[in-house]
Amino acid sequence: MELLLTYDVDTTTPEGRRRLRRVAKLCEGHGIRVQKSVFEIITDDQTLLQLTYDIEDLINTETDSVRIYRLPPSGTETVQTLGAAAPHPHRSDLIL
Amino acid sequence: MELLLTYDVDTTTPEGRRRLRRVAKLCEGHGIRVQKSVFEIITDDQTLLQLTYDIEDLINTETDSVRIYRLPPSGTETVQTLGAAAPHPHRSDLIL
Repeated sequence: MELLLTYDVDTTTPEGRRRLRRVAKLCEGHGIRVQKSVFEIITDDQTLLQLTYDIEDLINTETDSVRIYRLPPSGTETVQTLGAAAPHPHRSDLIL
Repeated sequence: MELLLTYDVDTTTPEGRRRLRRVAKLCEGHGIRVQKSVFEIITDDQTLLQLTYDIEDLINTETDSVRIYRLPPSGTETVQTLGAAAPHPHRSDLIL
């Protein structure tokens, strides 16, 4: 399944900035960072469940916010981009 | 249709911070701000087209990035939230 994960981590404290780096690093292990706090993730239910547990271990649930949206099939490929944004190919199985 | 609009605006300059405020204000006229740079928007093709023109007039296309994802039906309602995040009801037509 294709997902979009977005987060806001409170970076007004050194501890918050550390959480931000950890959340980003965790998400980079699961998908592609397409903007500072936006990740495109192609995964399965079980891996997603583990990711959500790992995220909850890292964030401050009072101040930090994570949203995980399910995208339609090819949702990451049909993204409309403006400005410096560019679509990020996930599938590298197409060998020409 | 339901959309998720995310942006990264370069705020290293005063001009960039002004652009950020303008983009946020513009998007607030079209949907719900669910995180600092994430908006849930329920709209139609024509209004979306105008929104993209308006955004392109505001952003610096070299440094700023906007991504618009189409969500599946009820995509804004089925969002999974962690931490301080909460689903934002869009439809207020249900009168009990």
